[in-house]
Amino acid sequence: MSPGSERSQGLMSTLHHYPLCPHSRFARLALAELGVEVDLVEERPWERRDEFLALDPAGQTPVLVAEGGLAVPGASVIAEWLDETVGAGAGERRLMPDDPRARVEVRRLVAWFSGKFWDEVTGYLVNEKIYKRFVPPASGGGPPDMASIRAARANVRYHLRYIGFLAQRRNFLAGDALTYADLAAAAHISCVDYLGDAPWGEDEAAKTWYARVKSRPSFRALLADKIPGMAPADSYADLDF
Amino acid sequence: MSPGSERSQGLMSTLHHYPLCPHSRFARLALAELGVEVDLVEERPWERRDEFLALDPAGQTPVLVAEGGLAVPGASVIAEWLDETVGAGAGERRLMPDDPRARVEVRRLVAWFSGKFWDEVTGYLVNEKIYKRFVPPASGGGPPDMASIRAARANVRYHLRYIGFLAQRRNFLAGDALTYADLAAAAHISCVDYLGDAPWGEDEAAKTWYARVKSRPSFRALLADKIPGMAPADSYADLDF
Repeated sequence: MSPGSERSQGLMSTLHHYPLCPHSRFARLALAELGVEVDLVEERPWERRDEFLALDPAGQTPVLVAEGGLAVPGASVIAEWLDETVGAGAGERRLMPDDPRARVEVRRLVAWFSGKFWDEVTGYLVNEKIYKRFVPPASGGGPPDMASIRAARANVRYHLRYIGFLAQRRNFLAGDALTYADLAAAAHISCVDYLGDAPWGEDEAAKTWYARVKSRPSFRALLADKIPGMAPADSYADLDF
Repeated sequence: MSPGSERSQGLMSTLHHYPLCPHSRFARLALAELGVEVDLVEERPWERRDEFLALDPAGQTPVLVAEGGLAVPGASVIAEWLDETVGAGAGERRLMPDDPRARVEVRRLVAWFSGKFWDEVTGYLVNEKIYKRFVPPASGGGPPDMASIRAARANVRYHLRYIGFLAQRRNFLAGDALTYADLAAAAHISCVDYLGDAPWGEDEAAKTWYARVKSRPSFRALLADKIPGMAPADSYADLDF
């Protein structure tokens, strides 16, 4: 092996992800916005592969394997790692503000979407509509539970109104500039939209904000995702939805 | 008002917490280890007080109101805020390593305990045994669901073995020094222990690690906590349990 090939192998990071996992999508958006190229490896977390569990004992997507083999598990941990290693020197492309007080607001909203929105919306939809199709019945697979899907569809409305509330007062969700807060929110909403469960008539300001984020080049790869046997909603990849 | 009293009012932070909320306990330990004095205000998050929701729309404990009135919601966000504003200048008392690679491990474990351990253990126990006693039946209150409590009691065993696995290989959970990983883990386990559900015969290394953390001065206030009508388990405050 030449020194050159060794070097390029060491420098390319790998993201273990699942296309409709919203946490994975948040990590993909962050990497793309910061201009970090990665090899994408599709992981089906419900298979609980030994090699994947060795990278992350929690067995959850996404996991970034950075230069040198360091495993960075979980979208929020990946976001902090990228901010410290790439973002801090990225100037205007940085996805966190410099001011610690403003960083609180970004982290509050990232936790809101990664935690609360997942618990109340995307967790239900992704588990019921996608993961349960692939998991054997003995492990909890089977047809979707409609009560969970109805709960998600009710809950997403107040989350869209909250996004609209923020978007009417600020240029982006956490302030003047694009931050991880926008990427986390848009990643989760993109999964809801793929599955046809985004009620776009609910809040005009939220829709306008999402249209802006969705139009960014970092979003293109997400809009091209296709899950076999489950086509996206008609307007999913449409920038004028 | 004299300039002095104005200054001391502005400098004292307030932590809105619930005594047996493990996230609140993580924040209390972090504040105590860093030597930050705060006024503690007990909040019953299930009451959804308007003034509390104004501080944090998610309505979850803990919320730190820092100098100048900035609301910092959520234990992990509080930990990052404290690290940036106090920890970075605290020398050996800092609760995060300087190296970004080592910070990944701390954040991975904080997410493990705040997320996975909560979902599989403390969330069940605290909701079923405590919160449901105070919430009206129409809002989900009532007697504890024994299936949830049994699930928590089964799950805590493998978590203790995982703590033991780490503690046998490292001085503290994330490496050589005490970090937020130890405080998050010990905060959650202290709630399990208060409720009498910690199977201390399961893993000797985990027990030894917990005894060390529990003996720290930062833990004293937690060991003095009492929930009216629900006494702690006999060995809860005992340093030789």
